[in-house]
Amino acid sequence: MDVAARVTRESHRKPSLGALNALVQDDLSAVNHLIVAKMDSPVALIPQLAGHVVAAGGKRLRPMLTLASARMCGYGGCRHIALAACVEFIHTATLLHDDVVDDSDLRRGLASANALWGNKSSVLVGDFLFSRSFELMVEDGSLEVLRILSRASSIIAEGEVMQLMTANNTGTDEAAYLDVIRAKTAQLFAAACEIGAVVADRPKSEQVALHDYGMNFGIAFQLVDDVLDYSAKQMTLGKSIGDDFREGKITLPVVLAFLRGDEDERRFWNRTLEDLDQVSGDLDRAIGILHRRAALSDTVMMARDYGSRAAQALAVMPDGRERQILLDLINFCIERAY
Amino acid sequence: MDVAARVTRESHRKPSLGALNALVQDDLSAVNHLIVAKMDSPVALIPQLAGHVVAAGGKRLRPMLTLASARMCGYGGCRHIALAACVEFIHTATLLHDDVVDDSDLRRGLASANALWGNKSSVLVGDFLFSRSFELMVEDGSLEVLRILSRASSIIAEGEVMQLMTANNTGTDEAAYLDVIRAKTAQLFAAACEIGAVVADRPKSEQVALHDYGMNFGIAFQLVDDVLDYSAKQMTLGKSIGDDFREGKITLPVVLAFLRGDEDERRFWNRTLEDLDQVSGDLDRAIGILHRRAALSDTVMMARDYGSRAAQALAVMPDGRERQILLDLINFCIERAY
Repeated sequence: MDVAARVTRESHRKPSLGALNALVQDDLSAVNHLIVAKMDSPVALIPQLAGHVVAAGGKRLRPMLTLASARMCGYGGCRHIALAACVEFIHTATLLHDDVVDDSDLRRGLASANALWGNKSSVLVGDFLFSRSFELMVEDGSLEVLRILSRASSIIAEGEVMQLMTANNTGTDEAAYLDVIRAKTAQLFAAACEIGAVVADRPKSEQVALHDYGMNFGIAFQLVDDVLDYSAKQMTLGKSIGDDFREGKITLPVVLAFLRGDEDERRFWNRTLEDLDQVSGDLDRAIGILHRRAALSDTVMMARDYGSRAAQALAVMPDGRERQILLDLINFCIERAY
Repeated sequence: MDVAARVTRESHRKPSLGALNALVQDDLSAVNHLIVAKMDSPVALIPQLAGHVVAAGGKRLRPMLTLASARMCGYGGCRHIALAACVEFIHTATLLHDDVVDDSDLRRGLASANALWGNKSSVLVGDFLFSRSFELMVEDGSLEVLRILSRASSIIAEGEVMQLMTANNTGTDEAAYLDVIRAKTAQLFAAACEIGAVVADRPKSEQVALHDYGMNFGIAFQLVDDVLDYSAKQMTLGKSIGDDFREGKITLPVVLAFLRGDEDERRFWNRTLEDLDQVSGDLDRAIGILHRRAALSDTVMMARDYGSRAAQALAVMPDGRERQILLDLINFCIERAY
């Protein structure tokens, strides 16, 4: 049976992370230990601040992708532990640097590392984690892994700069938005998966397949994240909504709604997201427009499409429990939207 | 003849960078071309902002050290070009991240990239250059070079965090100050020199010698830089003085003067550097105290001492024009203080 079809057919099962957690549990615990050991430094602020961010980081999705990919490739060694830690360090450094604010931009982030320790500490500790990540890769000794993750890091930085340039610009189109999330989010997912095939010494075709899985899964993941920022479900989980709206972040739901909107709606988006001139009730009005213009449901549909591409990429991989877990993960990610 | 003695004996010759420039001129021009090519990106802000910083960066001392070290080691290939560019990229990324300010800290830096483009752009473009540097090293393919520069990068980040923690603290002692400059400045000089021996495939002893040369030279360089910030000579060159003073930076001259100062002087240093409560005339008074307490001359003396250690480290290297150029460079660096 076609794997993409299987994803669809089996999507009535309520997806969970249970099987993935069970598969990588021991490995992930080793990763967490290594992360704590490697973020240590005689300079006390470093483990202090890094610990705060790593602890807040939560679900460790990216290192789990490295661990699960390596297992799917039949890898039995332990190099994937250190490399999963490298991936998490790069992600954490990105979070720290993403937290840096400009003077005009002090709206958000109450408990962010930045708010607690300041811009400069966040930048420098991010640099430390980033450098430490490369030190760990050098210890591992694979130039191919170094190539994949140094390239991913450049592309992430490019994506972050692109995002900065599209911020508060309601003229951003779908293609520009996709370029941004492909670079700033999906690239690290792709790299995290790809290095699973590299440590397992699998043929290039499987390395490419895992890259494609990670890339498409990463895009789907970000699309759903963007929907959740306007979602009632998110609110019932006790998570805040409207962060993107308050920052004037232009995500796909907004791109679609702006495109489909009338004069009055466009004036609304320009006022709230470009001028950041927001009053009470604006978030509700935004959610109302997004629903009426089918911008949230169409974004989820697009996420489904990228999810199918991710599933299709795994067709070349050996059938088995590990592959099924990575397929289920796609559904889990998309079901978050409901 | 003892090399250290030769440095001293020949120091009546007015040192210049002429011979070094002649030695590396063609290589450096290739480095500059590569830098421009490799900082390119479809994201226009990246080459724009990076170009600003690279152009302002000036003398390219660090890549010149890589080029001259490789030549001294008899290297005839061209790998040192790309690696010198890596060193400059790491230096530039550090400058960009060092420019990031906290809200409370908007005193300086009129024409800095930060002032022109904001904190966030500076951080992200720094990240791009840093990642690009690792991509270039991977292309070169030497794990030893990757080890040296990833380790140097971690230590630089540690040093920057240390500096942040000693900032505005007049209780900083000489040892803490030396730890900071060893990490944040000298480590990259050491790495820049060391990789010259690595590309030339020289024995470990020469790699260590070049590391030690760079480390001690780097410390001497920073000490003289710290003196120059309070120097009349600097002012006659049209460069600004008192930047460190205005920021409340605790450099060795201040550490020495504080230690040797009476109650009244210590109150002065606490007011101006800890509380940053400065009035007209304070910089002149600071310069007066630094002279009276012999804090500037003793800092230069310490720079001379580190300079001698740098020279001594080169004793194991083959005698010749290249070694003499690296010895002369020490004198040039120290003579800047007069």
